Amino acid sequence: MKLEKLVGDRFKERPSDCQIDSHAIMVRGGYIKYVANGIFSSYMPLRRITRKIENIIRDEMDKVDGQEVQFPVVMPASLWEESGRFTSVGSELLRFRDRNGSQMVLGMTHEEAAVQLVREYGQSYSKYPFMIYQIQTKFRDEARPRGGLIRVREFTMKDAYSFHTSQEDLEQYYAKCHQAYENVFRRAGVPEVISVASDSGMMGGNVSHEFMLLTPIGEDSIAICDECGYSANMEAAECIYEGVSTLQNTELEKVHTPDKHTIEDVCEYLGADPKKSVKAVVYQRNDDDAYIVVFVRGDLDVNETKVRNYIGCEFHPAVITEECGLHAGFIGPVGITESCTVLYDRSLQGENDLVCGANETDYHYKGFSPARDADIKEYGDFAKITDGGICPCCGKHSIKVSRGIEVGNIFQLGTKYTKTMGMTYLDANGESHNPIMGCYGIGVGRLAAAVCEAHHDDYGPIWPISIAPWQVHICAVRADDEEVKNTADALYQTLESSGVEVMYDDRKVSAGVMFSDADLLGLPIRVVVSPRNLKDGCIELSTRDKSVSVKVSAADAVDEIQKLIKELEAKCV
Amino acid sequence: MKLEKLVGDRFKERPSDCQIDSHAIMVRGGYIKYVANGIFSSYMPLRRITRKIENIIRDEMDKVDGQEVQFPVVMPASLWEESGRFTSVGSELLRFRDRNGSQMVLGMTHEEAAVQLVREYGQSYSKYPFMIYQIQTKFRDEARPRGGLIRVREFTMKDAYSFHTSQEDLEQYYAKCHQAYENVFRRAGVPEVISVASDSGMMGGNVSHEFMLLTPIGEDSIAICDECGYSANMEAAECIYEGVSTLQNTELEKVHTPDKHTIEDVCEYLGADPKKSVKAVVYQRNDDDAYIVVFVRGDLDVNETKVRNYIGCEFHPAVITEECGLHAGFIGPVGITESCTVLYDRSLQGENDLVCGANETDYHYKGFSPARDADIKEYGDFAKITDGGICPCCGKHSIKVSRGIEVGNIFQLGTKYTKTMGMTYLDANGESHNPIMGCYGIGVGRLAAAVCEAHHDDYGPIWPISIAPWQVHICAVRADDEEVKNTADALYQTLESSGVEVMYDDRKVSAGVMFSDADLLGLPIRVVVSPRNLKDGCIELSTRDKSVSVKVSAADAVDEIQKLIKELEAKCV
Repeated sequence: MKLEKLVGDRFKERPSDCQIDSHAIMVRGGYIKYVANGIFSSYMPLRRITRKIENIIRDEMDKVDGQEVQFPVVMPASLWEESGRFTSVGSELLRFRDRNGSQMVLGMTHEEAAVQLVREYGQSYSKYPFMIYQIQTKFRDEARPRGGLIRVREFTMKDAYSFHTSQEDLEQYYAKCHQAYENVFRRAGVPEVISVASDSGMMGGNVSHEFMLLTPIGEDSIAICDECGYSANMEAAECIYEGVSTLQNTELEKVHTPDKHTIEDVCEYLGADPKKSVKAVVYQRNDDDAYIVVFVRGDLDVNETKVRNYIGCEFHPAVITEECGLHAGFIGPVGITESCTVLYDRSLQGENDLVCGANETDYHYKGFSPARDADIKEYGDFAKITDGGICPCCGKHSIKVSRGIEVGNIFQLGTKYTKTMGMTYLDANGESHNPIMGCYGIGVGRLAAAVCEAHHDDYGPIWPISIAPWQVHICAVRADDEEVKNTADALYQTLESSGVEVMYDDRKVSAGVMFSDADLLGLPIRVVVSPRNLKDGCIELSTRDKSVSVKVSAADAVDEIQKLIKELEAKCV
Repeated sequence: MKLEKLVGDRFKERPSDCQIDSHAIMVRGGYIKYVANGIFSSYMPLRRITRKIENIIRDEMDKVDGQEVQFPVVMPASLWEESGRFTSVGSELLRFRDRNGSQMVLGMTHEEAAVQLVREYGQSYSKYPFMIYQIQTKFRDEARPRGGLIRVREFTMKDAYSFHTSQEDLEQYYAKCHQAYENVFRRAGVPEVISVASDSGMMGGNVSHEFMLLTPIGEDSIAICDECGYSANMEAAECIYEGVSTLQNTELEKVHTPDKHTIEDVCEYLGADPKKSVKAVVYQRNDDDAYIVVFVRGDLDVNETKVRNYIGCEFHPAVITEECGLHAGFIGPVGITESCTVLYDRSLQGENDLVCGANETDYHYKGFSPARDADIKEYGDFAKITDGGICPCCGKHSIKVSRGIEVGNIFQLGTKYTKTMGMTYLDANGESHNPIMGCYGIGVGRLAAAVCEAHHDDYGPIWPISIAPWQVHICAVRADDEEVKNTADALYQTLESSGVEVMYDDRKVSAGVMFSDADLLGLPIRVVVSPRNLKDGCIELSTRDKSVSVKVSAADAVDEIQKLIKELEAKCV
């Protein structure tokens, strides 16, 4: 099509409200338009990108025997009540009443709808395994949308659900889907996406993986071991410690620590290494406001996801009142009030000579030995892994913490949904069981933004040819020159009629405007027809990533472009 | 794919809650699953149908220079406040508040979003005309969803919006879109869809057309003239009358009509022709409950759409109280209370010697002459056209009233949205104007259902090949017979590898079960491989519409099938 007809404005200035590059590029390049907080409209270039991404995903899902279906966006709350998520999920689940007063929700994920769709179909073991998927709009009422298409409230997602009669079968299928996901990201031009072990969160289930594009602007922290290849989301990474015990078995001694509320202040005041101290972090349960105290080694932080998984409910940072029996800044294991849940991190196990709160305002203990001085029944893994920390897989001090954008995730759900929603099948012996589920998601718009984030320069995106809105961008520089116009017109028509997707810029604007618009559209191949080159019988052919820049004779141009398309396509197969 | 893997159940019994055939077929054939009132999930066969319909629509929209974009499903109410529709549209617009208390709506149509998307882009006349469209989920909180996919609450729709700088340009483009719509319906296998003039309803604007598939189960009534080709929705059809004046100029006389409340009863009691009487129909405005009395000739009915367009607001059937000054059953033009709005239909103009209410309980008038006895300033067109009535175009008594399903609509919107939402452009002289809009909708799921309604038999749908979920259905009757299995397997593989979409049934079930499942899937071409036919070296080839049924040699089968596919495709071009 002709660029002068393309709806949407392109401009140079980076909008001040865009914190990340892909967001700025999508606004500057006429890809998206802000409608409301976390809600955007897409112009044609982005819609073409997302359609291509959708088709790649569809193809890979079909190859693993997925059946495309469609679930509703608006669902009756009763479905979510069956699974228990109507109450367990927070306010990111948008709830409302329809004109008849019926309680409804906007779908943010569709496990319930999937089970509802196949509950009757899957009553015999002979129907298994099977997988259904959809590509559909979802709504998640995020508290803090950010980063353009990275974290939005309304988004298009491919979500897939598989059903199995054994854990082994699920695991085999899960591996196939894992491979399908790698194929999707490779074909979409981001083979650098890695998979990391993750926490299953509100989805339930045990084993799960996230597919991450590593980038400094990512929202997730990922622990990666370069030595053995271990990788996990910080939320899920197991924390391993080297003991720091000095074998020095001092006595427990109460010391006056006036106005020293943080463990850093106390350690400095007492001349102690923070590794030889006990940090207390206090939360309250959302359901009954009961207190939870987590004790970790002073140099570590609490991993709230691990705490949440352990106690099995949502919580929030505590408000410590006078009546609760806790003394903010002076909380310790010795003699702590019995009214709260107390968790001990494994980093404290076997240690001694520690500094800790004395549960009395302005007093701490020195010489604390957990085994001797407190009645600890159990230690758990409640701490955050740290950069330079020990790899839980190979045991080396090789953990690097990187940031990443989650572009996909897969979960082994188990029977959480089939059990709660009463989906059963009869096995060959006539016995009833709940099917075992897996689920598999990819955010389409977020993937587009992630590709842009990974592949752009100061001037705009560098779209991989597999998802580029068009393949070739023809610039007719000085379209008022008859020869330029005729050559470019002919090229445009020949390419279009041979099925190449062409954006044709024959506007009477300067070369500078033309090229900066072309940069913002980011099409992989650029063809420049100009009076200067035509004098030598040439046209210019280059790639957006600057790897190719050649002059070819006008007669050879179509063949050369076709060849270049094939070469670029071969990189995204 | 293999039928035994297809998720969804098929069964013979017509569900008791399905009033129309397409609904019953979609449930019986494993196309849809009920989720909530007017909300369905789609299984794979329907999803494949809707995708093919979407692609046909997309292709035709691209051909009229449409640019595919995407608007949000969830929109801020502020957008709808700009256009005024947040208050003017009834409770079919679903309104809710998000987690931050912001008022939001679920998109049921996207004029506001379209204007918002291009308001900045379209500031110069040089950008015009342009058209943007999307294919997206919509939600309309219907009071009475019915008929399976015919009237639902959640649906997928293609909606397009064009922008122009002159009425002439809009009209030219409108004609192109009209043609594109005819192309869509022809390619989707329903060339019998007709376009009818329609009322623009809540969309605003003047000229509009609906595309109707005529069927007795349709929700709309359409007036069609076989003589001149005139067609219009009943809501919009102008009503023409032949005068019935008898020139007999009798005196106005009050008569006692005890307990005769309906005009039929009164006419019978007085021995009068209903054509020689005045019927009163009373409504109340929704905003202030003020009364509206419409007088029409006794044999006609009031067309509420025309009344609504005339008075410019919503209303409801009246509750007549003692205080309101109206006497239910005895309301007439003579001396009617001045507290209500009174409308006179053109059917009363020039008549005389009529029976009408006397505005007094148990009394009517005889000999009423509107011109002489009442102070009527204006007559309007407020009556419903009737079967056998006069064509407003050619004047013959040739109107037939048929029923139809609306599968698409197009509107000349004018400047309703660009004015209210402040979208302007500068013309070549630097003067500011509001662009003129057109909008163009097609419901994807409803079109699928309409095709099914138009093309089915007692056993299932007869899908046109252009939208059929698969092209060919292979039945391996007696798949336990080795030769049958080998022949069918080979055929399946050859066809699939040559790009034919095949559903392969090699289940060990009876031929009866196989064929009834095949009927419910409704694929255009059926191939039966059976021991009996193979004995003669043959396989059976037939079409679902029964127009073809031949035996071909196994060796020729692939060629013959390919030929048949081409023949069927040629019908949907």
